[in-house]
Amino acid sequence: MTPLTFSIEHTHEKARAGTVTTAHGTIPTPIFMPVGTYGSVKSIDSNDLKTLGARIILSNTFHLHERPGEEQIEALGGLHKFMAWDGPILTDSGGFQVFSLARLAKISEEGVHFQSPVNGSKRFFNPEVVMGIQRALGIDIAMAFDQCPPGDSDRQTVLAAMERTTRWAARCRQVSMKPHQARFGIFQGGIYEDLRRRHLEEIVALDFDGYAIGGLSVGEPIVDMYRILEAVAHRMPEDKPRYLMGVGTPLDIITAISHGVDMFDCVMPTRNARNGQLFTDDGVVVLTNARHKSSRQPIMEGCSCMSCTGGYTRAYLHHLIKTRELLYYRLATIHNLHYYLSLVTRAREAIVQGEFGAFANTYISRYKAGDRATN
Amino acid sequence: MTPLTFSIEHTHEKARAGTVTTAHGTIPTPIFMPVGTYGSVKSIDSNDLKTLGARIILSNTFHLHERPGEEQIEALGGLHKFMAWDGPILTDSGGFQVFSLARLAKISEEGVHFQSPVNGSKRFFNPEVVMGIQRALGIDIAMAFDQCPPGDSDRQTVLAAMERTTRWAARCRQVSMKPHQARFGIFQGGIYEDLRRRHLEEIVALDFDGYAIGGLSVGEPIVDMYRILEAVAHRMPEDKPRYLMGVGTPLDIITAISHGVDMFDCVMPTRNARNGQLFTDDGVVVLTNARHKSSRQPIMEGCSCMSCTGGYTRAYLHHLIKTRELLYYRLATIHNLHYYLSLVTRAREAIVQGEFGAFANTYISRYKAGDRATN
Repeated sequence: MTPLTFSIEHTHEKARAGTVTTAHGTIPTPIFMPVGTYGSVKSIDSNDLKTLGARIILSNTFHLHERPGEEQIEALGGLHKFMAWDGPILTDSGGFQVFSLARLAKISEEGVHFQSPVNGSKRFFNPEVVMGIQRALGIDIAMAFDQCPPGDSDRQTVLAAMERTTRWAARCRQVSMKPHQARFGIFQGGIYEDLRRRHLEEIVALDFDGYAIGGLSVGEPIVDMYRILEAVAHRMPEDKPRYLMGVGTPLDIITAISHGVDMFDCVMPTRNARNGQLFTDDGVVVLTNARHKSSRQPIMEGCSCMSCTGGYTRAYLHHLIKTRELLYYRLATIHNLHYYLSLVTRAREAIVQGEFGAFANTYISRYKAGDRATN
Repeated sequence: MTPLTFSIEHTHEKARAGTVTTAHGTIPTPIFMPVGTYGSVKSIDSNDLKTLGARIILSNTFHLHERPGEEQIEALGGLHKFMAWDGPILTDSGGFQVFSLARLAKISEEGVHFQSPVNGSKRFFNPEVVMGIQRALGIDIAMAFDQCPPGDSDRQTVLAAMERTTRWAARCRQVSMKPHQARFGIFQGGIYEDLRRRHLEEIVALDFDGYAIGGLSVGEPIVDMYRILEAVAHRMPEDKPRYLMGVGTPLDIITAISHGVDMFDCVMPTRNARNGQLFTDDGVVVLTNARHKSSRQPIMEGCSCMSCTGGYTRAYLHHLIKTRELLYYRLATIHNLHYYLSLVTRAREAIVQGEFGAFANTYISRYKAGDRATN
């Protein structure tokens, strides 16, 4: 049995409209995965996720290992049951987090020693540990454990991290998972096109169920990210899902879709919502700006999310964020997640109708013009 | 036109089952009013309130005057429209808050000078100002401006506050409100039964649309609160709603209903939810206790709230509160509000069926036994 299947229904130039099938449900692609770091999408319950049309969510191996621990979740029936979400779940491997969040990380061929950011205890992650955690969580798509160098790393650093990532990916392939669990490999290579191509080949040779572009949007200039996406996304295996990790703005996502990427996750819609930045087709609304204080407008005219159709004005949301009312976080997060989920749905429809190029151009122009006007 | 009508459908001993009719809807009594201090019930949206069966909510004159200001809310169409809640709203007058929250309150016959707790600006509340704010908010039930002395005040202090409250209540009666707006008078008298009776008579003589017991649960011993309730609640006019302000635990509410009280508000279900205290028929569950870490139980077996029926276990909620996840506040608040709203509904049904005495005894015994066992 293959734990995960992928089919492509339509393509338009390099953009693809497909379907990923997992044990917990099917996922139309391109898709955006809301991030539920600690087993909850911040301020959003399972019914909300269904209403929003979420088809798969992402959670974090690194964080769940800290709290409440994978043994605890496994004993309670796995992550799906624990968080009362019966749809597909992908977990990040922690490769990014051990280098960005952990303290005193010491890396060797065997793995990474680090200190818990929660209580300072000693921790050790390596391919076997990380795949074991994801197995215990019972999630649908496990990510291989990679070494993710910073975006400004020199070629030699990137090369070394890449070679180690290949060896670790091979070890991840050797760990036995539950029958329903798929594994995605991650390739690195920084902003060096030749390294990206070489590493993609090495990871693909290990035969994963899907492939992810790691190490983008980690501090490198955006032109370099777009250049790498253009150079490598379409070279990823056609018959497997292509996942761009941790990216990005609506413009990044539309651009990546145009290069053939299928899956996305990012904290941007949820985190920016909490900070007062709301996404619209006319760019970002900065809700804390005084000009929204008396606005009777919804966040975005024509938006069908619960916050925009519920009678909540920008003036009310401005008041709620100023008074730090908990309701603010919910209403703002609902809008931003709905926006991102609608965006990939609109992109998919455009691909199906053979109009993705026009859609992308129109979308990007309007978004940029609005952003210039209001920011 | 009378802005508010009240009818009693059933009584059982001193307990009453009635209906309050306002311009924004009818309210079965006994009723509990969720508190939305700043124009939002913390973490709960308008759909949630409907789903929970909320029939009227309470908001705060004092807080809304600070932020965003009543002119702002009036310009945006009134508080109902501002917060997207089309059901009845009662506002507290600020009488309690100016003495408990404001800084440097200086009281005279004319009114109260105080400093804004938000920015230190000078503020002045008196009966005319406070009724004017409530008029601008457009709410359904405005509370008269009273002087609420602390629960440990001596007889002379209570007497002086009471006499001033009567003069202020008369001034509140003189302010013209919008046609749909009802006014409730508040009587004080501390823990002195004779003063309570005397003040009740003085306030009733001013002919309000309903009457509220103020100055209980403000630091006095609980036996004194229950003694005063027993002594005065049934002496309040039979043909008007009887409102006990800011009270209290489920036991307090059942006790007050038995003495003939119709309306309640309290931050307890919402605030205690946020602090990890969840109400059940078997007393309070302290969710942060380690024994809930692995519990597959819902908050309360048999509870029909969204949190208990949604598959969220105590173990999951324990994890969410430990990681300070925003979703925790929502799930916990939904349960506690549902519990309070169900409690008054159950009390009403028992009154209608002529079984309130038995219901109250059974309820109180079980709750106290559970609380002893778990706390």
